Amino acid sequence: MSSGFRTFNPTQNTWNAEEYLRTPDIQLNQQLKLLPTAQDSYRRLSGLKRADFLHAIHRLLQKRMEIIKDFYLKESGLSESRFETEWKRTLDTIILFEQYLRSQLSFEKKEDLPVDSVQMRKVALPIGPILVLGSSNFPLAYSTVGGDTVAAFAAGCCVIVKAHPMHAGTSSLVAACIEEARTALNLPEGLFTHVLDDGIELAQQLCLDERIQGVGFTGSFKGGKALMDLAQARKNPIPVFAEMGSVNPVLVLQDLSIDQQQHAAKKLAFSIGNDAGQFCTKPGVIFIPKGEMGSSFLTMLTKAFSEISPVPMLHPRIHENFEKRRIEIVSVKGVQKHTYQGALNGIEGRSTLAETEISIFLQSQSMHEEVFGPFSLIVRYENSEELRAGIQALSGQLTGSIFFGNHSEQVDEWIHLLANKVGRIILNDVPTGVRVLETMHHGGPFPASSDARFTAVGPDSMLRFQKYVTIQQQNIT
Amino acid sequence: MSSGFRTFNPTQNTWNAEEYLRTPDIQLNQQLKLLPTAQDSYRRLSGLKRADFLHAIHRLLQKRMEIIKDFYLKESGLSESRFETEWKRTLDTIILFEQYLRSQLSFEKKEDLPVDSVQMRKVALPIGPILVLGSSNFPLAYSTVGGDTVAAFAAGCCVIVKAHPMHAGTSSLVAACIEEARTALNLPEGLFTHVLDDGIELAQQLCLDERIQGVGFTGSFKGGKALMDLAQARKNPIPVFAEMGSVNPVLVLQDLSIDQQQHAAKKLAFSIGNDAGQFCTKPGVIFIPKGEMGSSFLTMLTKAFSEISPVPMLHPRIHENFEKRRIEIVSVKGVQKHTYQGALNGIEGRSTLAETEISIFLQSQSMHEEVFGPFSLIVRYENSEELRAGIQALSGQLTGSIFFGNHSEQVDEWIHLLANKVGRIILNDVPTGVRVLETMHHGGPFPASSDARFTAVGPDSMLRFQKYVTIQQQNIT
Repeated sequence: MSSGFRTFNPTQNTWNAEEYLRTPDIQLNQQLKLLPTAQDSYRRLSGLKRADFLHAIHRLLQKRMEIIKDFYLKESGLSESRFETEWKRTLDTIILFEQYLRSQLSFEKKEDLPVDSVQMRKVALPIGPILVLGSSNFPLAYSTVGGDTVAAFAAGCCVIVKAHPMHAGTSSLVAACIEEARTALNLPEGLFTHVLDDGIELAQQLCLDERIQGVGFTGSFKGGKALMDLAQARKNPIPVFAEMGSVNPVLVLQDLSIDQQQHAAKKLAFSIGNDAGQFCTKPGVIFIPKGEMGSSFLTMLTKAFSEISPVPMLHPRIHENFEKRRIEIVSVKGVQKHTYQGALNGIEGRSTLAETEISIFLQSQSMHEEVFGPFSLIVRYENSEELRAGIQALSGQLTGSIFFGNHSEQVDEWIHLLANKVGRIILNDVPTGVRVLETMHHGGPFPASSDARFTAVGPDSMLRFQKYVTIQQQNIT
Repeated sequence: MSSGFRTFNPTQNTWNAEEYLRTPDIQLNQQLKLLPTAQDSYRRLSGLKRADFLHAIHRLLQKRMEIIKDFYLKESGLSESRFETEWKRTLDTIILFEQYLRSQLSFEKKEDLPVDSVQMRKVALPIGPILVLGSSNFPLAYSTVGGDTVAAFAAGCCVIVKAHPMHAGTSSLVAACIEEARTALNLPEGLFTHVLDDGIELAQQLCLDERIQGVGFTGSFKGGKALMDLAQARKNPIPVFAEMGSVNPVLVLQDLSIDQQQHAAKKLAFSIGNDAGQFCTKPGVIFIPKGEMGSSFLTMLTKAFSEISPVPMLHPRIHENFEKRRIEIVSVKGVQKHTYQGALNGIEGRSTLAETEISIFLQSQSMHEEVFGPFSLIVRYENSEELRAGIQALSGQLTGSIFFGNHSEQVDEWIHLLANKVGRIILNDVPTGVRVLETMHHGGPFPASSDARFTAVGPDSMLRFQKYVTIQQQNIT
């Protein structure tokens, strides 16, 4: 039915040589049949054994770094230094969960003192096999052995990863490390499954499979919402944790000093343009005051932004979508544009700052939605009322940032307002550069994510994949 | 449109005098308009202020106990001693949350040590206004000021309660206490709303209202699933925590001594028949061995059960449903029945134990579903394989119980098996009598509840109504 597919090399603007085949049904079904037994057996393993598994994966990844890096670079077009950063982050996440399991915090049992001779324990258990659908923009950290997979393994869940087709090679290499670690430790067959598909059929089929008990997804609103609906339509609905992107509003307040403006402009320009702006936390809407201060700040921002050279985007399809969305917004009447004017000779994203005012922003739903790429929309505001209206018009967001000076008595009010809208508030800094810490909340009110109660990053991300059972014992003496 | 409705007095088998009107749209809309401001203002109150609110509600309830009791008795037909138990439980829950808030555990902020001069805090925030739909069988503890409402208030959420129409009077009295406490403490108007409706229209309308951000429901599968579907179909889907009942399987193992059998039989008989078996945790399916031991145990159970006098059920509608379901099951070929043979002269539930074997149980989906009332289905098993098959045929359950003797080496295996199916495992005791403790998990895999990750009872039930925000601060020195 499905013939082979290839990945794309953005740097060379060519298709890579390797051909990948959609996982045949017969092979997938064999793996699915193993799931119930594998899940039952893996669930019973201690936290320490799960930690050993993560440790073994970590070691194998380190051994294979060079070959994984080769594929990463040729399948993403991202830079070597970006690879280093993402690689370190991915490995650090594995270690974080390993340490968490070794400290046995995650298997904490609460025990009340006996109440009239009854003892009660509350135990965390895995919810069952998890389907993980990785992102296009993080071939490692949000993909095959990214936060979803590692959190699910730590929670005691079997995992089925459907590789992102844009980096099928990288994904296959990483999957081989996981599978080898499993075999080396003699863990149950079926604990991990890796499947390939360049369409959406396999993901849909797996989301509907009664053996799957949860989904982790990072990607577009359209994809995430479709999975949420499928999961809800099952006979036994299952939770979907979908992280679906955001415009990450930035509030620039009036009272920034010249130094503070310079600092903010440089930070923001880099955050918008770095790696072609292909981050879910890229600042996509920036509220800047009207008047002299705002105009001077905008000049600084535009200048800093023009110094960031365009780089290839991840894939021709992503480039095409970016151009479509970029042009859609700069074509609106009342929008000015500051666009990179140099020549482009491949799928580089044409860096663009668009500028408009609140009244136009409020009327355009399309401006409230993410433009994935090196683009940000500057929205000029006259006063606090206008700024407030702009923020309130937004739907749920992953992050919101505030740049303020030394006289911003009102900053607490803006924090309160953003707290209703976002999952993370950043003061005097940019939203990109998500840290993997216990205090990180990466998620946000719908549609930024499917469930504002959970984070996709940090040890708490295990809570997405855990349920509880109380064991109540009557002590008969 | 809707004319007035009345509540029913099960003890006297008559309709009560008071007439209640569906809350008019104009009045509801006025309250809904207040919600955003009320929510914003209540969210900002400290945990201590919320504790004061709960404390004030508690005091007013105590002051009004007599009149509330009058309505409770005449609207439910439940006994005075049952009132005492439920009253104490309701008040204890309020105090538990008050103490929890005073200890500020719930507003714990995790703080990492500064990482390269960045400070991070993770703060719990309310998800927003919660719609609470109370149960028919707990006019206090799972209703107007039951676990859902109190947890939502503690989490910082505004609450809209739609009273259960079967106890509209009790609910209105309790609601008046909440509203008075709010006024006395000068808390925002709109923080609490109480509405009446004897149909499903208001609940549906509120579940779809964009201002509502979550739902707490206790009731039937049909009702809970309908709300889940509505909530998911919204432009902005919201979480529904629905607790939808269960058959609460009980495993009686072969090796019980005669004394242990006597003990188990008495406990089970009471648990099935008490208050006409109208509990979500009532043991509805009991697996008993074939052979001599099982038959002797069944004789004890039947005898103990026959000593529990039938009492009126909550409402003619509930009685009618009970009779329908009861007859549906005892009419299946291969089912024997042990039915209360005395005269009944009102809406008493005809106490019934039905008996069948695994092969028939496995074929009848209807036997796997709750019969709400004084009924339990005994399923006789030949060996471990049959028992295992019986358990595996069940869908998600609130509880599972095991009665075992001193030689049950296999009990760990049964615990493991139940852990996949249930939210609470009870060893040598019955599932009724849910304790409000930190170690309590009251919930279970779908369809016992909508989300196995959350509990409806105990301080952790706040987690249903809380989201998180990280505040990240760049320390510029």
